[in-house]
Amino acid sequence: MIERARIVGMLRTAQDQIVSALSQSTGDAFEEQLWERPGGGGGRSRVCQDGRVLERGGVSFSEVHGGLPEAAAGGMPGSGQQFYATGLSLVLHPRNPYAPTVHANFRYFERGDAWWFGGGADLTPHYLFEVDARHFHQTWRTVCGRHACADHAKFKAWCDDYFLVVHRGERRGVGGIFYDYLRGGGAEDEALFAMQSELASAFVSAYLPILERRCRTPYGERERQWQLYRRGRYVEFNLVYDRGTVFGLKTDGRVESILMSLPPLARWATLPEPEAASPEAQLVAVLKQPRDWLGEG
Amino acid sequence: MIERARIVGMLRTAQDQIVSALSQSTGDAFEEQLWERPGGGGGRSRVCQDGRVLERGGVSFSEVHGGLPEAAAGGMPGSGQQFYATGLSLVLHPRNPYAPTVHANFRYFERGDAWWFGGGADLTPHYLFEVDARHFHQTWRTVCGRHACADHAKFKAWCDDYFLVVHRGERRGVGGIFYDYLRGGGAEDEALFAMQSELASAFVSAYLPILERRCRTPYGERERQWQLYRRGRYVEFNLVYDRGTVFGLKTDGRVESILMSLPPLARWATLPEPEAASPEAQLVAVLKQPRDWLGEG
Repeated sequence: MIERARIVGMLRTAQDQIVSALSQSTGDAFEEQLWERPGGGGGRSRVCQDGRVLERGGVSFSEVHGGLPEAAAGGMPGSGQQFYATGLSLVLHPRNPYAPTVHANFRYFERGDAWWFGGGADLTPHYLFEVDARHFHQTWRTVCGRHACADHAKFKAWCDDYFLVVHRGERRGVGGIFYDYLRGGGAEDEALFAMQSELASAFVSAYLPILERRCRTPYGERERQWQLYRRGRYVEFNLVYDRGTVFGLKTDGRVESILMSLPPLARWATLPEPEAASPEAQLVAVLKQPRDWLGEG
Repeated sequence: MIERARIVGMLRTAQDQIVSALSQSTGDAFEEQLWERPGGGGGRSRVCQDGRVLERGGVSFSEVHGGLPEAAAGGMPGSGQQFYATGLSLVLHPRNPYAPTVHANFRYFERGDAWWFGGGADLTPHYLFEVDARHFHQTWRTVCGRHACADHAKFKAWCDDYFLVVHRGERRGVGGIFYDYLRGGGAEDEALFAMQSELASAFVSAYLPILERRCRTPYGERERQWQLYRRGRYVEFNLVYDRGTVFGLKTDGRVESILMSLPPLARWATLPEPEAASPEAQLVAVLKQPRDWLGEG
């Protein structure tokens, strides 16, 4: 078992690095919010609203513990009502429709005498740039390749399975990695911790180059409206299917931090199918049928 | 047991009356969409998008049947996997922030050899006008007063309980009525049918006067932004807690009809508390503590 303080320290460092890199690159300011959870624990959120590049975003560290409601415990390893969880969670909604939304989460969980790591990162473009999707996936594959406990092909497929907006028959985006319930014991714990630590550190290099090359692309009303419409699907996934969101809301988490994942503005409308071969149709095609971005078969 | 065709006829007539009254009053056009449900049944939706008065709205009739997934059956009377449901469901999102959003639903359900009626109507203002809330509640109380099977005080309280955005500690709006699982047998069926029929007919007089007196009030950016922000809470309720939405999504319902309830545009932001005694604070106060609008104690 890894000491909680080491995990907390690693996550806080990753938060510092990510926020610092984002602020420096975008010029957007993040406001720090320290908060306590009435049921036990608290967190440190860093929030950007109405930035020049980031229309809304949050990078949130939390360390919470307490009693686990029955509704939230379903399917979890371990037994009993006591839990401890610490994690780093981020969602960034850029203003420019050509810049993709991104989400990442790195967490450690204990329930009773069981403990495990979970996490992932996924990219949600509104317009598809294959080079971006490949870069994002390649970054994660490279890191996973350095850790025997990280099965990249499995994590990639798990991500495609997890971020499915079931009622739309679409993925939320072009995927990335997802993993949960990775349980250690002895040396295995150190290996998982090292993996988690390096994945969290790799976020900046997975996403920032993409943001930087898209955030100044000129766009018009068509692209903006499409972005708002796609963001509606993002809301649908998060509120209907996302395990972290549902867990947070059911365990009296801090609502502003949990729902930091929601976009600044979203639109719902009944639209005609995008015209064949249009950029909008190309995006939808890839959401309906996840692709093997790195040709690993 | 009431013949299904009578219930269907009543609901279709109510749909005609409501759409006709709305179109005439607002000048906004509704487009008819006929659809079939692959699992059985279908519907007739009438949809308004980008109207002058109604920014988005739908009045949808549906009659569906088939197999009930385990996840959707929880808590329902009756047994077995076969269900039949017919209902009229509407949500209207006016453009003007001073005009409240409204929802109503009148439905009839069979599962195995059990059958029941359910329904309700609730008003979601972005700014509070007590006269509007009283008029809305008074209309329902008057109709309920004509039916021994309609317990208005119970339906009013049920509405306050049901439309609770749990994680926000707020109601969705100022309430109205809600009822479910009203089961008949013999003469009781006729009484429930008559109640349902008159409630559906009363929607126009419950809501249209409110819409008409608010839809031309001048407003600015402050009111528009507040409306978009409040609409975010509407989305949260519908996707996280609403029984009809969850049922529809889990039974492969027609997504465009189910999610017709979502607003055309919604905003999420971390805002400071509204200033004390501001119109925004007055609304929030009433959402946190439902009121007895008609002084019936």
